[in-house]
Amino acid sequence: MTLHDTNYIPQLSIDCVVFGYSEGKLKVLVAKIKSMEATWTLPGGFVRQTEDLVQAAHRITLERTGITTPFLDQFGAFGAADRINVALLDKMTTQWLALGEEPMAEADFRAWFSKRFVSLGFYALVDIQQVNLQAGPFDESVDWYPVDQLPHLIMDHAAMVAGALATLREHLDRKLIAFELLPETFTMRSLQEVYEAVYDRPFARNNFQKKMLDLGVLERLDKVYSGAAHKAPFLYRFKE
Amino acid sequence: MTLHDTNYIPQLSIDCVVFGYSEGKLKVLVAKIKSMEATWTLPGGFVRQTEDLVQAAHRITLERTGITTPFLDQFGAFGAADRINVALLDKMTTQWLALGEEPMAEADFRAWFSKRFVSLGFYALVDIQQVNLQAGPFDESVDWYPVDQLPHLIMDHAAMVAGALATLREHLDRKLIAFELLPETFTMRSLQEVYEAVYDRPFARNNFQKKMLDLGVLERLDKVYSGAAHKAPFLYRFKE
Repeated sequence: MTLHDTNYIPQLSIDCVVFGYSEGKLKVLVAKIKSMEATWTLPGGFVRQTEDLVQAAHRITLERTGITTPFLDQFGAFGAADRINVALLDKMTTQWLALGEEPMAEADFRAWFSKRFVSLGFYALVDIQQVNLQAGPFDESVDWYPVDQLPHLIMDHAAMVAGALATLREHLDRKLIAFELLPETFTMRSLQEVYEAVYDRPFARNNFQKKMLDLGVLERLDKVYSGAAHKAPFLYRFKE
Repeated sequence: MTLHDTNYIPQLSIDCVVFGYSEGKLKVLVAKIKSMEATWTLPGGFVRQTEDLVQAAHRITLERTGITTPFLDQFGAFGAADRINVALLDKMTTQWLALGEEPMAEADFRAWFSKRFVSLGFYALVDIQQVNLQAGPFDESVDWYPVDQLPHLIMDHAAMVAGALATLREHLDRKLIAFELLPETFTMRSLQEVYEAVYDRPFARNNFQKKMLDLGVLERLDKVYSGAAHKAPFLYRFKE
């Protein structure tokens, strides 16, 4: 990764709130920052001069998840004049330089991180079972955390998660994207659990099923036989 | 206006879709570009290094409208790698330089406009009766156009208007912002006409009135006496 401004747009970053669903919880992908104690961040990166914004967001998500075609949408630009914690970034660049992995001259590297970045927020929805976690260049590790039990995130990244979640709640019905968090086939109960995890409230089972079926976007497949036949649930698939 | 990158964030712009309502139409503020034939643009500008994004959007809107506190919200970032029409911008900078008004060195001025700008879209809602139109530094003039009868806008500005209108339609009810397009007091009929202009479809009068009153956000004031007393409509005000 080189950061010369002939390669990347200066003072502009992208941060991705990658949502996954497992164990009844809506989860967010969070990276622990390399060489820093107790400092976590959303997966982020910069925009190449030759790249569309959405291509950059895809690349940043792909680097950490291995997912080539996640559902991806914007949820806002974050650009408060004081959003950058200068002291924190200075400490981070010093630590990274000590690792000896950055090919740039120290002065250029420090200069790159010394100014405010306006960050464009994208959220991604992935089938968590398809993800192969992979740390980014400045990540010590990357892991899933329940959205209501995140570690301490740097700068305004917690506000970004809140913004992404608010947008996801607005979009879930209108854009019919809950299916993006599930495997290709799923039971009605799994779908309801995704809604309950996203909105953090229970849904009435009969109403929920009727509403989903009335949308006309679900294809009913075979039953899942794992116990008594009369209790076996149907599998569904989202009609593209 | 100087454009040295010590003052402004490079490769980042803000374009504002300023909506107003008059004569039964939803209107958008559009500037004719100075020294160019038949070239129109949304009011835009750059972000000062010391400025929050939302402050920059306020400044850009204020410069053209005189309105200090419009309703303002983001509707998306536009950053396709090929979004800049290089030939058009080159022609524009040549024309502007010929005017002799730009204090920057020609090479710096050309360099500033030669790269892609990622543009952050903000939309504003104003009471059109309160607006004092004022051309920006590169505007020949600035005028209101019905949203469905816009002149030919440069680059992706027509897509920006479409994006802003889609966001306005999503927000109108949820954020209760229709009142921002009206004077402080208004009749139920005016409010309905704003909804009809934004959504471009008729609303049933009784249903509309019931829905608005049920929201519990309207304060009923005196009647407007202009003809027969029994036909005089009530005035309403939005409870802050």
